[in-house]
Amino acid sequence: MTATDPGRTLGELAVRFGCTLRGDPGVRVGRVDRLEGGPDAIGFLVNPAFLPLLRASRLGAVIVAPAHADECPSNALVHANPHATFARIAGLLHPPAPLEAGVHPLAHVDPLARIDASAQIGPFAVIEAGAVVGPRCLVGAQACVGAGAQIGADTRLHARVTLCAGSIVGARCIVHPGAVIGADGFGNARDGAAWIKVPQLGIVRIGDDVEIGANTTIDRGALGDTRIHDGVRLDNQIQVAHNVEIGAHTAIAACTGIAGSTRIGSRCMIGGGTGIGGQITIGDDIVITGFGMVTRSLEAPGMYSSVLPVEEVRHWRRIVGRIKRLDALNARVSALESAAGAAAEGQEDDN
Amino acid sequence: MTATDPGRTLGELAVRFGCTLRGDPGVRVGRVDRLEGGPDAIGFLVNPAFLPLLRASRLGAVIVAPAHADECPSNALVHANPHATFARIAGLLHPPAPLEAGVHPLAHVDPLARIDASAQIGPFAVIEAGAVVGPRCLVGAQACVGAGAQIGADTRLHARVTLCAGSIVGARCIVHPGAVIGADGFGNARDGAAWIKVPQLGIVRIGDDVEIGANTTIDRGALGDTRIHDGVRLDNQIQVAHNVEIGAHTAIAACTGIAGSTRIGSRCMIGGGTGIGGQITIGDDIVITGFGMVTRSLEAPGMYSSVLPVEEVRHWRRIVGRIKRLDALNARVSALESAAGAAAEGQEDDN
Amino acid sequence: MTATDPGRTLGELAVRFGCTLRGDPGVRVGRVDRLEGGPDAIGFLVNPAFLPLLRASRLGAVIVAPAHADECPSNALVHANPHATFARIAGLLHPPAPLEAGVHPLAHVDPLARIDASAQIGPFAVIEAGAVVGPRCLVGAQACVGAGAQIGADTRLHARVTLCAGSIVGARCIVHPGAVIGADGFGNARDGAAWIKVPQLGIVRIGDDVEIGANTTIDRGALGDTRIHDGVRLDNQIQVAHNVEIGAHTAIAACTGIAGSTRIGSRCMIGGGTGIGGQITIGDDIVITGFGMVTRSLEAPGMYSSVLPVEEVRHWRRIVGRIKRLDALNARVSALESAAGAAAEGQEDDN
Repeated sequence: MTATDPGRTLGELAVRFGCTLRGDPGVRVGRVDRLEGGPDAIGFLVNPAFLPLLRASRLGAVIVAPAHADECPSNALVHANPHATFARIAGLLHPPAPLEAGVHPLAHVDPLARIDASAQIGPFAVIEAGAVVGPRCLVGAQACVGAGAQIGADTRLHARVTLCAGSIVGARCIVHPGAVIGADGFGNARDGAAWIKVPQLGIVRIGDDVEIGANTTIDRGALGDTRIHDGVRLDNQIQVAHNVEIGAHTAIAACTGIAGSTRIGSRCMIGGGTGIGGQITIGDDIVITGFGMVTRSLEAPGMYSSVLPVEEVRHWRRIVGRIKRLDALNARVSALESAAGAAAEGQEDDN
Repeated sequence: MTATDPGRTLGELAVRFGCTLRGDPGVRVGRVDRLEGGPDAIGFLVNPAFLPLLRASRLGAVIVAPAHADECPSNALVHANPHATFARIAGLLHPPAPLEAGVHPLAHVDPLARIDASAQIGPFAVIEAGAVVGPRCLVGAQACVGAGAQIGADTRLHARVTLCAGSIVGARCIVHPGAVIGADGFGNARDGAAWIKVPQLGIVRIGDDVEIGANTTIDRGALGDTRIHDGVRLDNQIQVAHNVEIGAHTAIAACTGIAGSTRIGSRCMIGGGTGIGGQITIGDDIVITGFGMVTRSLEAPGMYSSVLPVEEVRHWRRIVGRIKRLDALNARVSALESAAGAAAEGQEDDN
Repeated sequence: MTATDPGRTLGELAVRFGCTLRGDPGVRVGRVDRLEGGPDAIGFLVNPAFLPLLRASRLGAVIVAPAHADECPSNALVHANPHATFARIAGLLHPPAPLEAGVHPLAHVDPLARIDASAQIGPFAVIEAGAVVGPRCLVGAQACVGAGAQIGADTRLHARVTLCAGSIVGARCIVHPGAVIGADGFGNARDGAAWIKVPQLGIVRIGDDVEIGANTTIDRGALGDTRIHDGVRLDNQIQVAHNVEIGAHTAIAACTGIAGSTRIGSRCMIGGGTGIGGQITIGDDIVITGFGMVTRSLEAPGMYSSVLPVEEVRHWRRIVGRIKRLDALNARVSALESAAGAAAEGQEDDN
């Protein structure tokens, strides 16, 4: 939960965030809200579907694109990117809770750990030998920074995050509760019926400005490291296997799983529930819609999908029956073509 | 693990739970068991497939529907809903472990938290400032109730549950280990290549009689709240994104993910592994079979599916090839129709 | 993170692991590495795609199959199973961190728990009444062993594992952070609109030599137990529902969900993101490719799949449209067949 700012004038906000102000620069707003909010708040509009709400809005100000400025009944902060401007103003008006520098008396800090004096270490947190916690970091209640692990300046590990031994997190990262960074990858060698564990000897390296969701898991590398580059956004309950590499500014929605040694490029957007196979390469600027199944490398930027939306179950069962017999249907069509003397002439390869 | 009741007479059980007793009201049962169990236990039958087990049962009593009462070789408690009656009797005979009221000396409770004297707070639990813990609550070992969060009477947060700042849980709820309630939603605004974090300012509001499974995550709202209504059942490893609303008595099986701002109605049943897209509406009384992918709103009550069951891999690969060439197959059929002078006459739109 | 061994001679390794040595038995290697590594390390080759790297390798030694021995420019340890041999040598050179026997002063151990003197109990760990921790076990920081739970010799519960009351883990198991073993299964009986909780009275029984990944959940049985047999490998974020049974040496990749009462045989390999329905039986030696959906029992050993790989989205949308109209396409083909006097003659049943 964040504190509420005492308020800023629209004039200050316009200057600070590069907006054109239409209205009274002396009006103060202290919080952000939806278009239905009150005169002490500022909101935003991106989706034209909400124009009726904009026209009826009683907000103190609304951040809008130039095309919508005339529709705004109150003060308008006009900017080409209203959503990003809203995010920045919201961050200013609702900053994260201020840190209380120091180590909580109920934390356990190994004498060989190095913790910056400006960092906050919560109750029942564990900081093991050789760990390094940078300036203005938060290690939340019940969180753990393993032996030799490092977190850069201004990074916040919220309650109950586990950063395993040796892993490295950059600056200004946010990690949400229950995330596990640096557990062993799934490395097993078959020997007859049994499996022999393959020791997992790499670490996880996470860049700057990365956010990692609740209960997400990122495994350490087997040999070599698992790498999450700057600015990546990972939602909740994502699984990142050993030796995966995720390029800068890629955003991945919840419940996605990425198998071992796969490389994902920069600026990709991957929808929730997606499964990505191992040892493949996904290029830059690739978009995958939710619930996609990626089993081969994708190079060309673009949008990819394999989602099959639900149907009423009786209809769906008929469809599944048809799918299972597509081979037979194809054979029937081929037979008709042969009979009609109109065979496929190479447009269909039947292997 | 639950304690075992010293035992109840069938007469008492019949009166208390509105059953018709066929047999000896003085027989005592002290626990529930499967149909294969012994004479000190009581079981139930719903599925007629298990009638042979019923006929051979040595249980002290069996809860059965009227249609099966004659098949029961032992004492029978006859009720129109044997499963619910079994659940109630099992709850009576195997109550949860009794609370040990008080704050464990190894818990950390902020002086500004309010904890009812009848509540139990486990070792290494954290109760932050402004939190409210109601009568007869359990906050398990290593659990955390964040600043200003509230839990209603008789609610049990088991070991290692994280309830983030400000979130509210009603009465008689059960939350299993590793669940994270109220972490930030996945809110990001794109600005060139980079993402700007959108502060998540709402909370999670959970009604009464809700059960939440292990390692399930429920994100706080961005603006406005995420709401789980009374009587909802969420299994393990479910992801509920920001601003989702789940209607009363809806049950959702494990590994389901629900994207942001989606509204699910009351009394729905959603199978495991289902993916539900964002900003859609699912009406009341809708059933979705497991592994379904829901990408549009569903209004009409009924059962929906998109599951594609596995096939032997060689067959499946041929099918996938056929699916990928369905457009071509359709064109071949259209060509045959044209050649036969039997064109589709509007029954097929080819865009 | 594991310590580095001072080094072993190739002669010693060849004898210990049954390899044929081609080269200098006095050469010492102290760690394992990739084929690109240096002369102080030993690597392996399985996949012939990496033969160019082998030919250029500067490693002190490489473990290879007989067929590749001639390609190895450095010392070669020749073995029919290079991967398993590599795993064993890596385990020797990089053993897990040595235990520090004893109970950390910041752990909470109930006086009625039994902990072997050689076990290590980390800070903020909880060992409840009646729990049994065997010789040379690790109970990591912030982990919990519930009332009456047991862990066998040499088992390691890493940081923040929750083993719920009564559950039993065998010897030499490894459980990674965030795993929850023995939470309640999803048992609910419908009663009108509402759900009645069905008490979950069984436990989880885990055999020897089992490894369980981060944030995986394994529910206790409802009546009877959930069973994981010897040598099973479970990756991260797997959900195992109540009363599931998983046979010996079966390996399951991340994000797979298994619904209640399903039995999986021995030596199966199940790809990541797979969904397995409830109350079905999967035989021994069955392989399911990633993202498969299993809704019926599978008996015959073999490989099964239902994955639909992503396509460019415009193409995919056309395909989905075709899939949804397969019934109509089939009818068109049937009409053509009738018109051509070449009806399907029983090869197609249209119900």
